[in-house]
Amino acid sequence: METFFKNPETVMRELVSYWHDNEDQQKILDGFSENTISNFPMPYGVAPNFVIDNRPYCVPMVIEESSVVAAASSAAKFWMQRGGIKTEIVGVKKIGQVHFKWKGESNRLFGMFDRIQERLIQDTASLTEKMNQRGGGIVGIELLDFTDLEENLYQIKASFHTCDSMGANFINSILEQFAESLKSFLIESPSLKEEERDVLIVMCILSNFTPECTVRAEVSCPIDELGMFPGKMDSKTFAEKFETAVKIAHIDPYRATTHNKGIFNGIDAVVLATGNDFRAVEACGHTYAARDGQYRSLSHCDIKHGIFRFWLEIPLAVGTVGGLTKLHPMARRSLELLGNPSAEELMRVIAATGLAQNFAAVKSLVTTGIQKGHMKMHLKNILAQFNATKEEAEKVKKHFENVVVSYSGVRDFLDKVRLES
Amino acid sequence: METFFKNPETVMRELVSYWHDNEDQQKILDGFSENTISNFPMPYGVAPNFVIDNRPYCVPMVIEESSVVAAASSAAKFWMQRGGIKTEIVGVKKIGQVHFKWKGESNRLFGMFDRIQERLIQDTASLTEKMNQRGGGIVGIELLDFTDLEENLYQIKASFHTCDSMGANFINSILEQFAESLKSFLIESPSLKEEERDVLIVMCILSNFTPECTVRAEVSCPIDELGMFPGKMDSKTFAEKFETAVKIAHIDPYRATTHNKGIFNGIDAVVLATGNDFRAVEACGHTYAARDGQYRSLSHCDIKHGIFRFWLEIPLAVGTVGGLTKLHPMARRSLELLGNPSAEELMRVIAATGLAQNFAAVKSLVTTGIQKGHMKMHLKNILAQFNATKEEAEKVKKHFENVVVSYSGVRDFLDKVRLES
Repeated sequence: METFFKNPETVMRELVSYWHDNEDQQKILDGFSENTISNFPMPYGVAPNFVIDNRPYCVPMVIEESSVVAAASSAAKFWMQRGGIKTEIVGVKKIGQVHFKWKGESNRLFGMFDRIQERLIQDTASLTEKMNQRGGGIVGIELLDFTDLEENLYQIKASFHTCDSMGANFINSILEQFAESLKSFLIESPSLKEEERDVLIVMCILSNFTPECTVRAEVSCPIDELGMFPGKMDSKTFAEKFETAVKIAHIDPYRATTHNKGIFNGIDAVVLATGNDFRAVEACGHTYAARDGQYRSLSHCDIKHGIFRFWLEIPLAVGTVGGLTKLHPMARRSLELLGNPSAEELMRVIAATGLAQNFAAVKSLVTTGIQKGHMKMHLKNILAQFNATKEEAEKVKKHFENVVVSYSGVRDFLDKVRLES
Repeated sequence: METFFKNPETVMRELVSYWHDNEDQQKILDGFSENTISNFPMPYGVAPNFVIDNRPYCVPMVIEESSVVAAASSAAKFWMQRGGIKTEIVGVKKIGQVHFKWKGESNRLFGMFDRIQERLIQDTASLTEKMNQRGGGIVGIELLDFTDLEENLYQIKASFHTCDSMGANFINSILEQFAESLKSFLIESPSLKEEERDVLIVMCILSNFTPECTVRAEVSCPIDELGMFPGKMDSKTFAEKFETAVKIAHIDPYRATTHNKGIFNGIDAVVLATGNDFRAVEACGHTYAARDGQYRSLSHCDIKHGIFRFWLEIPLAVGTVGGLTKLHPMARRSLELLGNPSAEELMRVIAATGLAQNFAAVKSLVTTGIQKGHMKMHLKNILAQFNATKEEAEKVKKHFENVVVSYSGVRDFLDKVRLES
């Protein structure tokens, strides 16, 4: 490390300055990963004004991008005054896979599969006992034939309910036992030919694609109640432009990517704040967006009988127990701020935040454009960087009201202001 | 906020304990977002042993998931001893879109488009001047007709080189000017019919889908040089199993999602550490994974003439100037650790990390399975949570060598150990 930095001592002091003062706390943080040398601080903000299924929420958001938290709270407030956000859990099924190669007649394997299934369930009884008590467990086991795509390839595809946990460890432990049990079953089957007694386990792992672990969040109101928008835009023009913008995200993948990226700005911020895994949520959501063969918007809009309706349907496999949810001190606080929700309630909150975020972004795009707001924030960041005083900041802001903000432009102007004073 | 917490004072003390001791530093962090009440600390680790294009790197990684940094460095070391990771920049083109509705004959619009294009370039000259000096700027402007999918819908699709910046602000500012110029052009065109003088700008924004801003990272070696693997697996068996595992991620979207999630474990960790936007990188990469109509693996493997080859091709729109890259104190340090790379060099490092991560994950899956390593880390986290002493930890670890790790199981066993001592 020393060889990579010009002033290793200064760097070390800075790295240490980001440690938590309490050594035990820091030890917990360090334990989450490996080779840790410091903490990377992410802004921890809150978005008030959320009313989800008639309950008020103040949503914790961890995000380093400007305007996201402000946009989410502003959209939440807008809809708070119009009945709030309604959500619905469509399903909570998680998926796991055992991929294996077997040299035999496909129909013989399918013929034995009822007995194999019994064995898999029996052999994992001790692993599933506690989850069963909590109301979860294995909910289905299927055998899939992939031999048309790859020689001798089959898959055991199992589905699970994992209650309030995301379930990765639970599912992976069961799948690895499935593999062992499958091996034993085949070895112990006297009716099988020799080559049928062997099975090559390629791998066992949960799938992050959970199209049946899905939540829907929706807002709606009569068009007239949408009110007026910037640039003297009336509610009907707004509603139609908004609907067109969402439609474009359905027909053009180039637009869909950015549109969904905005949804994930909101979603990931809550996922991170609650100690869940945003890579899992992202991978799942985007695969879902491409499920019909073209990558499309995750949100939808329609206008029928004078009612403007905007909704989001997205798979979200998250937990409120296990993983980092209770281990990360800030994640624990986030869950407390949300009233220690169940996993399903957290799915609702996350989807509602994604929807609010998307509403705010599209609203901004079809009215004022996004540069106005972004540039204001950008200017604020640059001013902070140069330690501008309040007076200097005022002068710079005035100058850049009608001038495009750039780092060098602000620096040059600030230099001039400082020389003149 | 107070109403959401049971002990607001304790919570406040904890939130404050995560602030940076230096008020000015904290002000900078707070300025990145809105309604900030604390910092959310993410583990900041380093993965040594990377040799990319014959240059050694120590890669900064910000990630809260266990085993990721360890896996990346171990894979990097494995390939360091086999020639390192080779990369190639395939393209650096960014995309922006102006979506608009126009009521006229499509061919009349296309007929005028050369003149419109001239006008767009002319009107944005002051915005592009500096980027042109740095070797970037607008590199193409196209008119697209979407009227078969949505009445009167057209698009100006522009492409850009943005040098070492990610370019969002640059592109969005230009696109909003394009919209203004298009409006003016049509109003000022005397040959147009009245209804053709009007244009409805739906929205102007960059696209996060940048399939032509792509990097490729590759490792390869003779199969014999792969060595032996856990469980006495020889190199040929390993190579074939590995190839099958990657193939499964090409034919089954359920597997592809998880496979690519593993790639993004590595990618996002570097993206975050360098102050780039992981939502943008995720959205782009996953859309790219679905570009042929089925969601597939981003990495590829083949075995030809005794050579094992494993590579990743992924679009990455990142920057090393602008945005938070220099504003976030830790991001600045990450870039310093990487030798203050250009955006292209950073693309190479990120792709190499994603490839290393994926190699480690698939290697683990096809050899020992992932639960063994995960459970070890999981146990470590649980022990930290219960403030276990070294002696207690030893006893617990011994007990759980052949027992499935669970939070309640560890708690119960630890209680017993403590009662007995």
